[in-house]
Amino acid sequence: MSFDWKKGFTVDFDPATGLSKTVVSTKRHLSGMKGMYLDSAAQAELIANGDPLVYEFHEMGAPETPDDVAPGTSITYPGKVGDEYFFTKGHFHTILDTAEVYYTLSGIGYMMMENPEGEWNACKLEPGKMVYVPPRFAHRSINTGSVPLVTFFAFRGDAGHDYGSIEVKGFRKLVIERDGKPEIIDNPKWK
Amino acid sequence: MSFDWKKGFTVDFDPATGLSKTVVSTKRHLSGMKGMYLDSAAQAELIANGDPLVYEFHEMGAPETPDDVAPGTSITYPGKVGDEYFFTKGHFHTILDTAEVYYTLSGIGYMMMENPEGEWNACKLEPGKMVYVPPRFAHRSINTGSVPLVTFFAFRGDAGHDYGSIEVKGFRKLVIERDGKPEIIDNPKWK
Repeated sequence: MSFDWKKGFTVDFDPATGLSKTVVSTKRHLSGMKGMYLDSAAQAELIANGDPLVYEFHEMGAPETPDDVAPGTSITYPGKVGDEYFFTKGHFHTILDTAEVYYTLSGIGYMMMENPEGEWNACKLEPGKMVYVPPRFAHRSINTGSVPLVTFFAFRGDAGHDYGSIEVKGFRKLVIERDGKPEIIDNPKWK
Repeated sequence: MSFDWKKGFTVDFDPATGLSKTVVSTKRHLSGMKGMYLDSAAQAELIANGDPLVYEFHEMGAPETPDDVAPGTSITYPGKVGDEYFFTKGHFHTILDTAEVYYTLSGIGYMMMENPEGEWNACKLEPGKMVYVPPRFAHRSINTGSVPLVTFFAFRGDAGHDYGSIEVKGFRKLVIERDGKPEIIDNPKWK
């Protein structure tokens, strides 16, 4: 599917599922996130037993220019690896100084954010909550609930995604389930 | 209310009403839109009889830089001036080349768009529909339904709003009710 970025168009994104009849999503299964969860043994077992879909999102092909805005939805499924809630890989923007906004359509969880200077922030998400991700902050969606966490996002067309350092270093903070509730902890594997 | 644009934050926007407990909206009553509807007599009568609120939207004070994204919601109320459905003034961006995206949270209607070269496009909105407004296109929300038309929007922080030419010239196309249904017509007053 290609869109008329010169004249304007509409696209359907179901607010409950985040899915679209017209845009094909990019899917990340647990096997594509090796080394990113704390409990490697639990992760290996889940991969062996069906390799669950952890999240998906839409890349619509917006023109990669500073004048453009790239929209789409992100869907993080409910689930855990050991005690750790399912999350998206998370990314910095390639143009580090660019912001992003998300509007929560369905589900609950957190937007975990951190910048290269070590500042971090975890914003709680629920339906109707908009979260503003400032320039320079890597960001990751975390689903702490029992239904898909669905957000609508928008960022500058040329911002780009830089997964590299996050895949290697991880985030400084993790969200795990303790006594049936989400808790933010230091990441013992953080480098 | 001020927000921490350096560290990130969340804001509530009710998807049914578009309203927020934390952000004060900007309100436009019909008296603030003189000369913009086709039927001036009907408009004068409505203004005399209570001056209805036509729309409201949120200006959150995002940093006005090219690196930033300005979010908010827009709420266009149901109603008509004569046969013409309630609409927002509409605007070009001051930096004409910048795009914008809207996600429809509630209600039905149109996003009417036109560029200085005379191209236009009317995209139908309903819950779950995202509309992409390209660079150079003025855009106006039009409510053709019976409940508020609520959209979440995002544009580049420094894009700016230019209402001037639209207030004077109007849009080339209008949406009116004919036989109980919306119809797109040429604007007889367009200059």
